[in-house]
Amino acid sequence: MDSRLKNLDYAFNARSIAFIGATETVLKWGFLILNNLVTGGYQGSIYPVNPSRDTILGMKAYPTVRDIPYDLDLAVFTVPNRLVVDALDDCIAKGVKAGLVITAGFKELGEEGAAVEAEMLHKARDAGMLLIGPNCQGICCPKNRLYPWMPMLYHPPHGNISFVAQSGNVLNMLIGPTVISGLGVAKAVSSGNEADISTEEYLSYLVEDPDTEVIVAYIEGLDDGRRFLKLSREVTRHKPVIALKGGRTRSGMSAARSHTGAMAVSETLFEAACRQAGIILTSTIEEASVTACAFVNRPLPQGKRVGIVTGGGGLGVLASDFCTEIGLDVVPLSSGVLEELTALLPDWWVPGNPVDLVAGLDFNILKPTIEILMKSGEVDAVMFLWIGAPRREGEKGSYKTVQGTDATAIWGFMDNMLVKTYVELHQLMHELQIPLYMASGLHMSDDGDDPMVSSNRPLIFSSVESACRALSAMAEYQAYLTAAR
Amino acid sequence: MDSRLKNLDYAFNARSIAFIGATETVLKWGFLILNNLVTGGYQGSIYPVNPSRDTILGMKAYPTVRDIPYDLDLAVFTVPNRLVVDALDDCIAKGVKAGLVITAGFKELGEEGAAVEAEMLHKARDAGMLLIGPNCQGICCPKNRLYPWMPMLYHPPHGNISFVAQSGNVLNMLIGPTVISGLGVAKAVSSGNEADISTEEYLSYLVEDPDTEVIVAYIEGLDDGRRFLKLSREVTRHKPVIALKGGRTRSGMSAARSHTGAMAVSETLFEAACRQAGIILTSTIEEASVTACAFVNRPLPQGKRVGIVTGGGGLGVLASDFCTEIGLDVVPLSSGVLEELTALLPDWWVPGNPVDLVAGLDFNILKPTIEILMKSGEVDAVMFLWIGAPRREGEKGSYKTVQGTDATAIWGFMDNMLVKTYVELHQLMHELQIPLYMASGLHMSDDGDDPMVSSNRPLIFSSVESACRALSAMAEYQAYLTAAR
Repeated sequence: MDSRLKNLDYAFNARSIAFIGATETVLKWGFLILNNLVTGGYQGSIYPVNPSRDTILGMKAYPTVRDIPYDLDLAVFTVPNRLVVDALDDCIAKGVKAGLVITAGFKELGEEGAAVEAEMLHKARDAGMLLIGPNCQGICCPKNRLYPWMPMLYHPPHGNISFVAQSGNVLNMLIGPTVISGLGVAKAVSSGNEADISTEEYLSYLVEDPDTEVIVAYIEGLDDGRRFLKLSREVTRHKPVIALKGGRTRSGMSAARSHTGAMAVSETLFEAACRQAGIILTSTIEEASVTACAFVNRPLPQGKRVGIVTGGGGLGVLASDFCTEIGLDVVPLSSGVLEELTALLPDWWVPGNPVDLVAGLDFNILKPTIEILMKSGEVDAVMFLWIGAPRREGEKGSYKTVQGTDATAIWGFMDNMLVKTYVELHQLMHELQIPLYMASGLHMSDDGDDPMVSSNRPLIFSSVESACRALSAMAEYQAYLTAAR
Repeated sequence: MDSRLKNLDYAFNARSIAFIGATETVLKWGFLILNNLVTGGYQGSIYPVNPSRDTILGMKAYPTVRDIPYDLDLAVFTVPNRLVVDALDDCIAKGVKAGLVITAGFKELGEEGAAVEAEMLHKARDAGMLLIGPNCQGICCPKNRLYPWMPMLYHPPHGNISFVAQSGNVLNMLIGPTVISGLGVAKAVSSGNEADISTEEYLSYLVEDPDTEVIVAYIEGLDDGRRFLKLSREVTRHKPVIALKGGRTRSGMSAARSHTGAMAVSETLFEAACRQAGIILTSTIEEASVTACAFVNRPLPQGKRVGIVTGGGGLGVLASDFCTEIGLDVVPLSSGVLEELTALLPDWWVPGNPVDLVAGLDFNILKPTIEILMKSGEVDAVMFLWIGAPRREGEKGSYKTVQGTDATAIWGFMDNMLVKTYVELHQLMHELQIPLYMASGLHMSDDGDDPMVSSNRPLIFSSVESACRALSAMAEYQAYLTAAR
């Protein structure tokens, strides 16, 4: 790895941080970001910089970075754009290793801003200081409880998914499913205008990061398509990269130019490059993020043959359609397998794939049904679809309860059985090494006592489509790896 | 309307119900559905039928329907299939007006089952009794607090969206967004095998239902495509119909045949029929349902020109792309409008559409910004996108709090401002009659004290794509109405 990139360690593993523009004014980023850092539980040293305050949030404040009498790994910039260059000079004089420039108002504003940005880069590179941004929302590294970023009190848990995004807002949303699923984040960076470090360089850094298993990238533009292709190829042989592209259309490109001053890239060329480089291309924020979650803690499917088990016939129909439409193969099952299933299932079961459990209420047949499919050798992956009504009462408190069977009792009973089943099935997947994709409405439970909230819980997809897309992406990646070897 | 269809009033407005197969065994539908009916607050009379019990859930039970000494509007069947015909004979002898046959094991099992189903239909029609199902999950009519259906303790509030679905499981999921948004349900029916009443007949009934403004249909097969086209054309001139088709592919069709014994219909023909009939065709459960919600309480866009206001640049880029990809027009704004906006927005704003609020924290500019777009005459609809991080802490209780600014305080402050803004913007939409589509992560709040939970709250979309699709569907429907006049 480029020694310059090594300096990213000073950002993600910062032992000390100068916070330039720290304030106690609540509706300023200089407060909100500092507050995220403090409330996130960061254990290193924080030195607020503010020329007109002695203390900020109870911490001693310094007029400039030069006045801080300690070594500094990282400087966070939240001052207005006209003050950034001076603050950068101070950082360089002080020997700060990395700068995180939140401040906007550079290249994205046009020529004048681009000139200032170029000047900043020149100074930083000369001094061997690394710059993240400008015009970005920050970074996070939950392992170090490091959250110097905009989204308020948003402290995702530690996990194995990393993110590089040319939009802070999109980054927040991409991270969402990893928080809800409990799978968590290794490292995340809002790369902003990418004055110094480009998307593909972050990928090169992350491929060597032992905590990162999967990488998600949101890309609006590329300065050097060839370099992107070269570097990302080296990454995808080791770790899956899931990409979402902004600026796929003329109006999207125009918006991207205003946003981060991104160099537009032809959509056709970009798609072709991704295909060559084994990058998994997705089309929505949710798809990108949920697909990344699917890669964690799950074997790759060795092919595209799918067995579907569903608690409701219509869901099986829609799943068959969607699987077929995206290139998966809902294979017919052999008579031998169907006979095994018939022995288990109710009289009114109609043999076939999907295996429709026909509104049965016997939870004990779930695991053996899925085990038959996994052991059949006839499918490369199994989907288990059990989605129903959301758990939200239309009018709270308006129910009479029937003897011993109030809402909590029935829901608790069903949920406990389902959760037990999900955990068992998750183990079964690892034993038999056949990937399993479970979709359920269970996590829609809104009571805050969701029994599935735990970093070890199995991933539950919230829709048929997201489960199908993740399966398909993983099968494609397996095919890419096989071809690349 | 066909006088036979009029009898559906005896189901949806039933004053008295015989419940055939009532039981207290918790894991039987004869209990779970009865429990839904009782706990839902139904105010009519319920007569449990069970030959071996004197009482069920504290209500007097009867050996057969013939033994009930009262008039009966509706009979619900949850007994095993071999007992259904005898029970039907009892209902006919008793003069029951409508039957809701939950029980499965008829046409979907093949010839033998189809023969029994035909016999049932023959008997019922001769007697002027109407049948819903068989092989269905039930119906609901929240206005009457009538919930004789499978989904446990699922009591959606009253509203103006009605549903006809050839799958109970899909019906539950379709209704979900109307529950979460508080928009509610007028009438919903799981039509099952449709022995008596077909999907298009339910549409004909619902078009005359004063509580129904929008209809959602999930369709796996049609017995008579020509009749479907004819009847649905008469419906769409008065009310929008949003359709989701199951069985679009060979494997989906095969699953549909096992599910409800549906007559497959060519996907190309079906799509053409929908286009001719002005039916809005959707491709996922979520899309169908959220699009229906969008039609409630919102003017139709008079064209496809869209103005986008976004709290984050990347979201604006993705929204521009998606709008363009589905045929909406993210129009450039005139210099006059851009000047008006420039006067309002921060210095580092880059003039254009999307209007990117560049991570500003001044909520007071939101309404005037959107008002400028609405009054410009340059757009037919406005999108307001403000989605961020989900409100779920990674590790509960692990935060220190900084003076007076704990999570609740900041979130509450921001949420109150946003909610106030949403309500004001919702009113502005009605004043100016320019439809507004607001997407936000706000409703992802998981604390149970969501200030937006109210049947009058504005609809908040959870993703850019769902808002764009709804807008596009409404513009298409407006164009269809104009052409049809």
